[in-house]
Amino acid sequence: MNEIKRLQSLQSRVHGWGVDGVLLFSMPTIRYLTGFTGSEGVLYAGADAAILLVDGRYTTQAGDEFASGEVREFSDRPEAIAELVSGCEAKRVGFESSALYYDSYAQLSDRMPGVTMKAFSDELNTLRIRKDEEEIATLRRAAEIAGNALAFLLEMIQPDMVERDIAFLLESAMRERGADRPSFDTIIASGRATAMPHAKPRRKKIERGDCLVIDYGAAYEGYNSDETCTFIVGKPTAEQREAYTAVKDAHDRAIDAVKAGVPASEIDRVARAAIEEKGFGRYFSHGTGHGVGLEVHEPPRLSKKSADLLEAGMVVTVEPGVYIPGRWGIRIEDMVVVRENGCEVLTTTSKELTVL
Amino acid sequence: MNEIKRLQSLQSRVHGWGVDGVLLFSMPTIRYLTGFTGSEGVLYAGADAAILLVDGRYTTQAGDEFASGEVREFSDRPEAIAELVSGCEAKRVGFESSALYYDSYAQLSDRMPGVTMKAFSDELNTLRIRKDEEEIATLRRAAEIAGNALAFLLEMIQPDMVERDIAFLLESAMRERGADRPSFDTIIASGRATAMPHAKPRRKKIERGDCLVIDYGAAYEGYNSDETCTFIVGKPTAEQREAYTAVKDAHDRAIDAVKAGVPASEIDRVARAAIEEKGFGRYFSHGTGHGVGLEVHEPPRLSKKSADLLEAGMVVTVEPGVYIPGRWGIRIEDMVVVRENGCEVLTTTSKELTVL
Repeated sequence: MNEIKRLQSLQSRVHGWGVDGVLLFSMPTIRYLTGFTGSEGVLYAGADAAILLVDGRYTTQAGDEFASGEVREFSDRPEAIAELVSGCEAKRVGFESSALYYDSYAQLSDRMPGVTMKAFSDELNTLRIRKDEEEIATLRRAAEIAGNALAFLLEMIQPDMVERDIAFLLESAMRERGADRPSFDTIIASGRATAMPHAKPRRKKIERGDCLVIDYGAAYEGYNSDETCTFIVGKPTAEQREAYTAVKDAHDRAIDAVKAGVPASEIDRVARAAIEEKGFGRYFSHGTGHGVGLEVHEPPRLSKKSADLLEAGMVVTVEPGVYIPGRWGIRIEDMVVVRENGCEVLTTTSKELTVL
Repeated sequence: MNEIKRLQSLQSRVHGWGVDGVLLFSMPTIRYLTGFTGSEGVLYAGADAAILLVDGRYTTQAGDEFASGEVREFSDRPEAIAELVSGCEAKRVGFESSALYYDSYAQLSDRMPGVTMKAFSDELNTLRIRKDEEEIATLRRAAEIAGNALAFLLEMIQPDMVERDIAFLLESAMRERGADRPSFDTIIASGRATAMPHAKPRRKKIERGDCLVIDYGAAYEGYNSDETCTFIVGKPTAEQREAYTAVKDAHDRAIDAVKAGVPASEIDRVARAAIEEKGFGRYFSHGTGHGVGLEVHEPPRLSKKSADLLEAGMVVTVEPGVYIPGRWGIRIEDMVVVRENGCEVLTTTSKELTVL
């Protein structure tokens, strides 16, 4: 029961933050602390009390999943929160300001005139940033399920298949291997669409000479994998080969640089430098990676301006890319665990240039 | 190009609201106004200017999808918004307060010391509340795809199938019939799990005597269908039959009551009264319905406390249910369009008691 320990650890820190308790609104974080897997709820964590508020759809489920804690049903959310805070005699309350909409904040603030509300961002945003070995094992399994499905896809794939059908085949293969669902809408992009980092699968056949970008993941027991492979259909041009080598080199050097204690911005710098060296610098239009876990995108950020420091147990993507507008693009992405002296790659597909 | 008209209509209202422009953050609403289908962006709509901010992943795509408008790329979001607002010489700006997190609000507010920010909730929340005939046609198609897939599933279903496999079969059948994805995680609940309105499919076989709740939908061109059927596996007990009749009666009476001009709370009252009449009142633990469109849950709300009034073109669910803790539950849900003199049911599956 890791959830109990995590929640107790949070509760033990509350007074140190100068508040009587904190209110949490992000469902992945509430799941992390209580085990509750519903789509809506609010968690109050004070030094002595932890109470989960849910609506009538979830009362039974929350009681089962958060068996060690107290569950209350609400019909009016701000009213129920105000009542709870007042019942706990809390006068100063921290709230998860990155997960509470301004409107809800304003409603809550109106209902609790005697309570000081303090916006807590980093304190609560980073609760899940370092994964324990059980979480890492789940992420490893998610990545394996996805990788096995991709291996199956690569045996089935034909040069005249339609992007949407490839996405469907891959997603079905992940489900058959134990995924709950795709981690996100699978990106299958061929030809000019690969120049857009986040293209949607179309009703279009892949063709000889195309780059084929597959950005996909499996959700498994709440955790998400994230991996991108770029293939060339038919014979690569010299320029495609050169760009692939540049991106692969950036990817490899960035992964080599990942270890505890290194600034996240340094990983981005290393990847960017490798791509710039080969003259493709202006075509790398996004950051190098992001944390991944119960959410597909979560802290830390691996980008130029990131102030995050890599720590052991963080799980991050490393995903440099080159996108030549109107022509084609290449991205290579692995998901890795930061370790004391390096990193462990969780995704399983080879990133050597593969021609289909 | 309905998007152009919608955006122009919004722009024409801005001055009447006492501001120079509004900032929008909800992606479904930004899609509705611009056609942009990416996962992140910010839209500024002033009387004379409409500008879409996107990050480097989406620059090309946004340029294609919002071809009639202006697209700018940002790397630091609050900075880019502040620059845009200052460039438009806007001094009073409304913001979509139901879609902006408190943290982002605080950052933005810090960067724009000379700008008055006004929280706009209902003004912007209800932009999409009445669907035009093109949207209704898309929702009708989404509901048909889903309904055709369910009809196929019902031919395939066997009394010893596992909940998760049923979910997979149904979701695959929707995809094969043209769905982009399920509208939400499909609920397949049997036996005692049906007593939880939002149960997750398990690795458990359905059994004779079970209620089987299927709550599912197809996402098609951005729009979502939503329908729930409850079947009985084998022979229903007298009590199950009685509860089914009560829920069906509540559902039918509520649908009969739907028309333009009726308070949304009245639909909830009608459904609740029918269930109370049969003595199951304490087991109907949620509201009667919600709006549906680009989001699965959107305004209006059909509940006891709702202040919404039904208007022609709204698309809402009607979904009464009875949940007997620890035993079983029954829910029946259709998706309907509010018309001047009644409503049109978009979902296609018969809601007569069906024994599998």
